[in-house]
Amino acid sequence: MGKLKGNVLIGQSGGPTAVINQSLLGVIEQARRDPRVRQVLGARHGVRGMLEDKFVRLDKQPAVALAAIAKQPGAALGSVRKKPTEEECVRIVEFCRKRDVRWLYYIGGNDSAETAQLLEKVAERSTWEMQLFHVPKTIDNDLCETDHCPGFGSAARFVALALMGDDLDSRALPGIKLDVIMGRNAGWLTAASALARVRADDGPHLVYVPERSFDLEAFARDVEAVRQRLGRCVVAVSEGVRGADGKTVAVTKEVDAHGNAVLSGSGALGDFLAAELKRRLGDKLRVRADTFGYLQRSFYGCVSSTDAREARAVGRAAVRFAREGGPRSGSVVIRRIPGKTYRVEYGWVELERVAHVTQSLPERYLGRGADVSEEFLAYARPLVGGLPRPVVLP
Amino acid sequence: MGKLKGNVLIGQSGGPTAVINQSLLGVIEQARRDPRVRQVLGARHGVRGMLEDKFVRLDKQPAVALAAIAKQPGAALGSVRKKPTEEECVRIVEFCRKRDVRWLYYIGGNDSAETAQLLEKVAERSTWEMQLFHVPKTIDNDLCETDHCPGFGSAARFVALALMGDDLDSRALPGIKLDVIMGRNAGWLTAASALARVRADDGPHLVYVPERSFDLEAFARDVEAVRQRLGRCVVAVSEGVRGADGKTVAVTKEVDAHGNAVLSGSGALGDFLAAELKRRLGDKLRVRADTFGYLQRSFYGCVSSTDAREARAVGRAAVRFAREGGPRSGSVVIRRIPGKTYRVEYGWVELERVAHVTQSLPERYLGRGADVSEEFLAYARPLVGGLPRPVVLP
Repeated sequence: MGKLKGNVLIGQSGGPTAVINQSLLGVIEQARRDPRVRQVLGARHGVRGMLEDKFVRLDKQPAVALAAIAKQPGAALGSVRKKPTEEECVRIVEFCRKRDVRWLYYIGGNDSAETAQLLEKVAERSTWEMQLFHVPKTIDNDLCETDHCPGFGSAARFVALALMGDDLDSRALPGIKLDVIMGRNAGWLTAASALARVRADDGPHLVYVPERSFDLEAFARDVEAVRQRLGRCVVAVSEGVRGADGKTVAVTKEVDAHGNAVLSGSGALGDFLAAELKRRLGDKLRVRADTFGYLQRSFYGCVSSTDAREARAVGRAAVRFAREGGPRSGSVVIRRIPGKTYRVEYGWVELERVAHVTQSLPERYLGRGADVSEEFLAYARPLVGGLPRPVVLP
Repeated sequence: MGKLKGNVLIGQSGGPTAVINQSLLGVIEQARRDPRVRQVLGARHGVRGMLEDKFVRLDKQPAVALAAIAKQPGAALGSVRKKPTEEECVRIVEFCRKRDVRWLYYIGGNDSAETAQLLEKVAERSTWEMQLFHVPKTIDNDLCETDHCPGFGSAARFVALALMGDDLDSRALPGIKLDVIMGRNAGWLTAASALARVRADDGPHLVYVPERSFDLEAFARDVEAVRQRLGRCVVAVSEGVRGADGKTVAVTKEVDAHGNAVLSGSGALGDFLAAELKRRLGDKLRVRADTFGYLQRSFYGCVSSTDAREARAVGRAAVRFAREGGPRSGSVVIRRIPGKTYRVEYGWVELERVAHVTQSLPERYLGRGADVSEEFLAYARPLVGGLPRPVVLP
């Protein structure tokens, strides 16, 4: 790369997280330290703002406002779910030329990495020299190459605290409780529910992830076995659980009869599973289902301090990697440093290794039956920040 | 009353709250200061423990364990939903005689106040002299005689923080978002969603409570009007909304076709309303529904400091009111002291004024259209503790 000088452009894309604005701030503060950078622009709603020439001067915002925004859920620039066409990519590079943008940072998940990759290909062929970095975020934790994703720790914290409280609620008023947790293709967030356990009889007693095939009959049998043993059963189940045929439970015929097949933003799966349990185990059972839905990413006031710190750091790291003589593009990854104490370092990989691919829970993180492994718990525990340890009367 | 000496018995009943254990601690600590009190017993699962002679010696628990329990959601003694028969009341009074219980404190909602009243009538006719106090709790805030109920402030805080985050999420990815909130007969908790607003265009943009009749056509029209104006619409709707015929929307024929008619622990109402909006306003609209469910009372880590303090105080107050020469029975109430600064005092009323009756949102707390009034916001604001003020980029 030549000796670039010019403006920085930041976009946010995909589902917001509790800490996506920390990454925004990370990019802003690191970019403003760079003497080559003139202005720091924020595209409204990601690539849509670039296509419509809608942006905000982030370097003109009061420091106190930016500091507040870093702590807020939601995507402060506005987000978008859009894969630009080749023609749109050309227009976006033209927008960058017009606005003197030499560095583009796109904060998002694997689809956003793909968008960055598409843009990079077009930029490479153009006469406009620029660097493009993908800054990772996703509550789903399903990006490849990275140890974990900014956004996951806070969502996992929400899930763990929800299950911890739910287990205490279930001890008070026993019954069968189902909690449907986000994660269409990967069970990371559902698996994090197991962090709620302190004692052997704490819930969740059963954890169902999409990585293992889901069978209604086995499910009912598992639940009944726990209920016989403990007088109650708390279940964490991923919205994306699938039958042996690979179809999600929520799009089988049985569920269509119960309504919508949309997974998030719908209580259909939970209601369906609750009805199935009643049908199989008895109508008089107290069965309740909660679908945690968007609260998992948007609840205001549930942030993992580790997650917040790392989300900020990946934003800063992206700007550092886009140095003079550095790579033209890449995606920031978090690498865990082996050792007893949790420590990480930040690196980068080529966009193609992250774009459009996802990482499921590996076999070693799955436990026997409907559960996760100890190894998963050791992996996930440092990510969610300190958790309370509920006390139960003897 | 004579000069009673003996044991204290505490029970918890009905749905748990984030602070019901604060009230438990309040009773324990005040009772242990009373030289007339020998032991402090906790009945397991309320009246059921009294019928089955199952209890725990609370005065033998380590102080550090009790202090931790005070901060936990759930009902640490176990709860129950049970109205004892007259014969069972007789057996419970016999249990009290056998266990030398002279003071019974029952922590719960209006049904629990009724249980206390039934027990009191039987106790009055018996030769066993004792005092019975109801200690109020309910996230629904629907008890009569009291300014507000312990448990409401924390649940209202959860709802306000959820809506605040949801509004930021909706700004990032605009669409129509429905949030279904607990409260079968009274809209207090749904109304509290309006505390999430800071700016004029903040959500929730529409608030539907059971106190006003709910019409699907008007609902769709309201939503569309907001969407036309702001490009998005965030709606808070009570699980108990009713049509003009007085029937809840969730038990009309349309909803039966969508599944379960249970209000809490089911996503049926939200899914039904989302489907209706799509049908009426267009299939391509992005409509999502979340049903907050039990998280509202059980999420671990969302407590209003005001609520926690007052829940502790009503427990203590109950013990003080059950003094020598004081009333045989009663229910503790919170009275707001008029003035610019929020202050309360604690009083008591006869059980019959609280038992089995509920308090809906009064007309003055309802605003024009689907909204609450400024007066409601002034009433509710001090109860939820300090809230963040999200910043939005210009």
